[in-house]
Amino acid sequence: MDTELFEVLSSNTIKISRFEITEDKLKTADQQFYYSFIKIKPGICAIIETEKGFVVLKEYRYPIKSWTYEFAAGIIDEGETPSETAIREIKEETGFIADEIKELGIFYPSFGATDEMIYLFHAKCSSKTDAETEFSEFIKYELMSEQEVEQLIRSGEFKHGAGLSAWLKYMLNRE
Amino acid sequence: MDTELFEVLSSNTIKISRFEITEDKLKTADQQFYYSFIKIKPGICAIIETEKGFVVLKEYRYPIKSWTYEFAAGIIDEGETPSETAIREIKEETGFIADEIKELGIFYPSFGATDEMIYLFHAKCSSKTDAETEFSEFIKYELMSEQEVEQLIRSGEFKHGAGLSAWLKYMLNRE
Repeated sequence: MDTELFEVLSSNTIKISRFEITEDKLKTADQQFYYSFIKIKPGICAIIETEKGFVVLKEYRYPIKSWTYEFAAGIIDEGETPSETAIREIKEETGFIADEIKELGIFYPSFGATDEMIYLFHAKCSSKTDAETEFSEFIKYELMSEQEVEQLIRSGEFKHGAGLSAWLKYMLNRE
Repeated sequence: MDTELFEVLSSNTIKISRFEITEDKLKTADQQFYYSFIKIKPGICAIIETEKGFVVLKEYRYPIKSWTYEFAAGIIDEGETPSETAIREIKEETGFIADEIKELGIFYPSFGATDEMIYLFHAKCSSKTDAETEFSEFIKYELMSEQEVEQLIRSGEFKHGAGLSAWLKYMLNRE
């Protein structure tokens, strides 16, 4: 594909807290303009299935000042493969141990504003240890049937972008 | 819900290009820490259904340097309702005129990093005028059947977060 749609005349990246904002000056055949976007590290989101149901997390998300229903999610650490991150995050956030993990592909949460990319997974877990959440994480979870998860999505109560994408992939693979 | 989970000790917002980054100093019962997030204006994403099929856009997204399959999307302008934005964006990006527009709820693309919220819609269109894309937008589109859209999602070629969330809501409402 023509990645050379624009010529990059200059590029400026500023690091603010945990984010990097890049502003590039671009040139097309007849225009010059600035395009800014945020660099966000790639992450994972995993549907967790146990013998007693799907693990739906309830977490406090400070950017939107709300408790949200979601699936396990987290950032890929340096040197980790995406599936290693998924297994680690599932254990840290819920205590469940993944026996089996299936890739559901990737997606971009907001490619008009950020370069963030999320790897989606479906994990099956039968055993459990203690969760190891960080001091800034406030996480609870509930076990739900497939029908209950879908009712939560249908009702509008489940609003987690990566979780919705993961569930759609899971549904289309299930059919 | 307990939005008072944290006490905000200080808050600092920096505007960089089109983004605002907020860094708040928070206090829990036994810890103090910084939490930063990006403020992004709310937007819309609309599935467009015509008599000849669903309108799947192909747009160049500079943050990920790729052409992507997606549904119509855009930012809510000052004074607009979300459905007015949807009708306007559908017309600007594709030329289609929405005869009927149905709300599919909201979702958060990345609530760990941004406060961005997207309103989802399903529009039915029968007539068409010329698209009015901006000089920085590179948009094409294809008409696809429901089965073709789902195959595009299943194969991993459709990676648009808001589009995936919209399609899941559409599927669950359709059933």
